Amino acid sequence: MSDDQRFGLARQVTLAQPLPLDGGGRLAHVEIAYETYGTLNADRSNAILVCHALTGDQHVASTHPITGKPGWWSRMIGAGKPVDPARHFIICSNVLGSCMGTSGPASMDPATGRPYGMSFPVITVRDMVRAQAALLDHLGVDVLQAVVGGSMGGMQTLEWAATYPDRVQAAIVIASAARHSAQNIAFHEVGRQAIMADPRWNGGAYYGTGDPPAAGLAVARMAAHITYLSEAGLTEKFGRRLQDRGEKGFGFDADFQVESYLRHQGISFVDRFDANSYLYITRALDYFDLAEEHGGLLANAFRDKRTRFCVVSFDTDWLYPTAESRAIAHALNAAGAAVSFVELSSPFGHDAFLLDMPELNQVVDGFIRAGEA
Amino acid sequence: MSDDQRFGLARQVTLAQPLPLDGGGRLAHVEIAYETYGTLNADRSNAILVCHALTGDQHVASTHPITGKPGWWSRMIGAGKPVDPARHFIICSNVLGSCMGTSGPASMDPATGRPYGMSFPVITVRDMVRAQAALLDHLGVDVLQAVVGGSMGGMQTLEWAATYPDRVQAAIVIASAARHSAQNIAFHEVGRQAIMADPRWNGGAYYGTGDPPAAGLAVARMAAHITYLSEAGLTEKFGRRLQDRGEKGFGFDADFQVESYLRHQGISFVDRFDANSYLYITRALDYFDLAEEHGGLLANAFRDKRTRFCVVSFDTDWLYPTAESRAIAHALNAAGAAVSFVELSSPFGHDAFLLDMPELNQVVDGFIRAGEA
Repeated sequence: MSDDQRFGLARQVTLAQPLPLDGGGRLAHVEIAYETYGTLNADRSNAILVCHALTGDQHVASTHPITGKPGWWSRMIGAGKPVDPARHFIICSNVLGSCMGTSGPASMDPATGRPYGMSFPVITVRDMVRAQAALLDHLGVDVLQAVVGGSMGGMQTLEWAATYPDRVQAAIVIASAARHSAQNIAFHEVGRQAIMADPRWNGGAYYGTGDPPAAGLAVARMAAHITYLSEAGLTEKFGRRLQDRGEKGFGFDADFQVESYLRHQGISFVDRFDANSYLYITRALDYFDLAEEHGGLLANAFRDKRTRFCVVSFDTDWLYPTAESRAIAHALNAAGAAVSFVELSSPFGHDAFLLDMPELNQVVDGFIRAGEA
Repeated sequence: MSDDQRFGLARQVTLAQPLPLDGGGRLAHVEIAYETYGTLNADRSNAILVCHALTGDQHVASTHPITGKPGWWSRMIGAGKPVDPARHFIICSNVLGSCMGTSGPASMDPATGRPYGMSFPVITVRDMVRAQAALLDHLGVDVLQAVVGGSMGGMQTLEWAATYPDRVQAAIVIASAARHSAQNIAFHEVGRQAIMADPRWNGGAYYGTGDPPAAGLAVARMAAHITYLSEAGLTEKFGRRLQDRGEKGFGFDADFQVESYLRHQGISFVDRFDANSYLYITRALDYFDLAEEHGGLLANAFRDKRTRFCVVSFDTDWLYPTAESRAIAHALNAAGAAVSFVELSSPFGHDAFLLDMPELNQVVDGFIRAGEA
């Protein structure tokens, strides 16, 4: 470990420069909450950036301060894992627009002294990545040995390779897509409408009331959560089993285990996430279309670049199905990039990338070590 | 046409007897709104019962009184169609628990003189079918030449064949299932929670306020509507095309066509449907498990019966996928029943059964005529 105060758990930095945004203008006073694990080696060649998903955070391998749960990817990041603090200098930052210490709608707007709310600018995945690049500048990391992420983390990884190719030696894109489909947008729109339909949302101005739009946010989470699981996985986990009762209750309590589970997912989510952040980050995802940013042809995003790519999908993921990963692999092939593409089998749908999955760890480990050889 | 006042459009009857319910007890004063088309022949052998889906109604082939749109299945029912008033006596009734004239939570409870609201009993698909059987008694129809329905209508059709086998010569089950899966239940639970999260829902006591839980019901409809369409169909219909604008708006208006479409689906739905009815009917669907009603073995529902079955699924229907229809066909085979099973190809997902689909009409027409030969 280093004495450098920039490194370690629970760090925060205010960017030295305003952050230019895809939507126009610049965001002044950007704070980034982040964590680092391991030690940056002498030639600064062992840094790995981990990008989190929609509702993730910087606590990739440390206890979550609100839930008390282990880091969200401690199956992938840690001693003896593919990304290992003994070998790697690991960086994970809370994305722009989120609510765990990085600037977002709940943050104080220095211009008004009040939380931004809906006056926070609409951001993009590329804006998130720009903020991360500024963080790397702060940390003195020029080149990343690898960027790795699942779901929205995979989109950031793709955006990293496209926007800062000279800074990315290897990109690992898991359970992700190069653009949001109409169905992806539709599910997010349901979630946003659920939040905005909650009178407590109040146009986004609910901070300080102690009364956030919890009911709307819980419904949004429930709808999204279904998309994270496979039909077969839900059947295996819950089927039509009843919750704590021998017979149907002929009422509107949670009769079925799957109802009880979903309600719990909704209710527990609101304790750790800000409703406006949910609006902003889902919007950023819906706007994501890497081909569009490159003249309409995805391959253009990757031409004449030396980043190595590893693309992984799961056969039961219907949120970002294998076809989306295959399209990325095809574009990389068309661009002449080095790409390894694998579809893994799992009953657990999109969520598989967060679960105990030895095959995934083997793929990621092998791909990272190949670059170290 | 007959002078018999029981026959025709926009009919309603109060059942002579209280209706026994699966949840226990009996429901007194049950009203059934229904329509008939065509003429019951002399030997009363040409009656076809059409069962509607979750948010459907009795206006199967007549103009909807609220929306002004053509009957919801006028592609299947009408002159020159597979179910033809020139040959058939066609009956379609609004299901128990709904809100188009049949008794449901918005109806007056004779015991209190006020709308039932959440004091309406929780009902089942079998209860709906029992009410239809009582309607047939009223109409003087002992035996149905056929029962036909898609989605929840298919579940009623299955229930008809299982509960009143001597009254059903042929059953046509389209885009349906013999039970609700965990994923089906999960989506419905999201819808119910969206309604119940709306403060205007007020425990179901919103009648007469002029202020129903429209926002919650719209969100419920939006979530459900996604499940009616296929990912490929959404991509074909909307893709990532923007709505009435050349560039992304960097805001929370409906930038994408698919958002605009979904919002419209939600908003227009609340004009024609009652939120409490949505709760009750989704509950009935989630409770539906025909095997469970027959000792846990689906084949038991169909043993020693002479009903002919036609089972149709659509390859892109992920709400009630082909595997569910195949399970029905397997059970019918195991029971020694006559069954014709076909999977049709359509890009439009579950909704295909309501759309212009010549292959579907051919299948239904051929199956009905085979029974007339």
